[in-house]
Amino acid sequence: MREGWFTEAIEDEGVAFSLAIDEKVHDEHSGYQHIEVYRTRRWGRLLVLDGCVMVTERDEFLYHEMMAHPALFAHRDPQRIAIIGGGDCGILREVLRHTEVAHALQVELDERVTRVAEAHFPDLCTANDDPRAELRFGDGVRWVRDTEPESLDVMIVDSTDPVGPAAGLFTKEFLADARRALAPGGIVVQQSESPLLHGESVIAPLHRAAAEAGFDGVHTLTFPVPSYPSGWWSATLMVNGGDPRNFREADSEAKPFATRYYNADIHRAALATPELLR
Amino acid sequence: MREGWFTEAIEDEGVAFSLAIDEKVHDEHSGYQHIEVYRTRRWGRLLVLDGCVMVTERDEFLYHEMMAHPALFAHRDPQRIAIIGGGDCGILREVLRHTEVAHALQVELDERVTRVAEAHFPDLCTANDDPRAELRFGDGVRWVRDTEPESLDVMIVDSTDPVGPAAGLFTKEFLADARRALAPGGIVVQQSESPLLHGESVIAPLHRAAAEAGFDGVHTLTFPVPSYPSGWWSATLMVNGGDPRNFREADSEAKPFATRYYNADIHRAALATPELLR
Repeated sequence: MREGWFTEAIEDEGVAFSLAIDEKVHDEHSGYQHIEVYRTRRWGRLLVLDGCVMVTERDEFLYHEMMAHPALFAHRDPQRIAIIGGGDCGILREVLRHTEVAHALQVELDERVTRVAEAHFPDLCTANDDPRAELRFGDGVRWVRDTEPESLDVMIVDSTDPVGPAAGLFTKEFLADARRALAPGGIVVQQSESPLLHGESVIAPLHRAAAEAGFDGVHTLTFPVPSYPSGWWSATLMVNGGDPRNFREADSEAKPFATRYYNADIHRAALATPELLR
Repeated sequence: MREGWFTEAIEDEGVAFSLAIDEKVHDEHSGYQHIEVYRTRRWGRLLVLDGCVMVTERDEFLYHEMMAHPALFAHRDPQRIAIIGGGDCGILREVLRHTEVAHALQVELDERVTRVAEAHFPDLCTANDDPRAELRFGDGVRWVRDTEPESLDVMIVDSTDPVGPAAGLFTKEFLADARRALAPGGIVVQQSESPLLHGESVIAPLHRAAAEAGFDGVHTLTFPVPSYPSGWWSATLMVNGGDPRNFREADSEAKPFATRYYNADIHRAALATPELLR
């Protein structure tokens, strides 16, 4: 790391991303991971888990909006939502902008991530006190396995990279459990890494695992996230029956809340499949 | 710069992008600029001008395809093409995939960039010997000012950042000259930097300059370019009359050449305007 900069190097891809920092404002080992918070010079606060950029205040809207709104507008009537991971609470904030949502449960492994977000990223945590929000801390894989069948409308899987604790979220066993938890018409959306770097190593295997888990509609969205490796990211929608590319276009056009990236045109745009992913 | 890495730091945005390098294979001061070529560990060859990443072999397809195909498919019958800048020849290669093109003139200020590309980036220069290609070296601003009115179907402005020699390519005077050079139905496309970093500083002023130059249809496309600052990039289409969002969709769907990013769905997707650019 150069003096005055935070650097995340992806050694096996030979690429690194750095942000100029003014100060480290938090540093702890939570038992699950190393949690750091920096005040950057131009990107607001920066949350780092085990050396990987999780959130910057400057670009967090891109990831959080695109993990929430396409899935929720693709569902006919999204009332019961579960977020697996998502401890920084940014997706929860976006989910609760939808007035149809009756209950949004977040199941994060590491309570310290949420407490650190509450202390240092207040803009991510604006919905934490919403009466529809429930914050639970524990193993998301186990929660999904044990939860009541057909009890969810949308499940959002906001994992870290598919190594270490998050590896279990990319298996056909997990996805079969997720499918069982969905009510008819339900949708899973899962972050699926970079279209440039991880097409073969993550996106294609996730499509195969989803098919083996019984999902018959699987589609990958793409969108920019400047602070993630390559700056280009993806999320994969999975449904039982139907086409995950369909969404409530009129409702999206008339959405009653403000966004900074997402709109109905961007929803349609994110559905386009680049040649390299075909 | 860390040992073994090339780093481009955007100091005023507090962000840096680095690639692991095996070897520097070229280094010269051309009189216009400092030209460097590196062999990277995972991104192929890297071309650097005055410290800024211009091309990596791993992701060059994104920029070059998106600077060529949307504009050419937006034109009814693109026969006469001029590329201003573009010395690495990657856009020229994409332009000449279109069989309608009768003549593609590239006007690059610095002949050394093209000679270095020919020596070190053979995949960018595969069309340089096409009989329809003409490579000219000189001042693109002056060439556009002096060229015959109504003599071009598509002008592609592939500049470096809008500072230094490229600043003149972002003025209403240049754009008025560009407009005069276009035949009826003609199109200009110009690279317009990062939607995240340069919305206010480049994209909005370019729209104003285009309007002042007399263009009545102006639209910005967005697409990923991992090796450019923020990993998220844009190009702006300008037309006299008509809507730059219209394109020959059936021809694009049936394009007879291979691409790695562009297709008709991606063309439509790139036209979507994110909320932050509205």
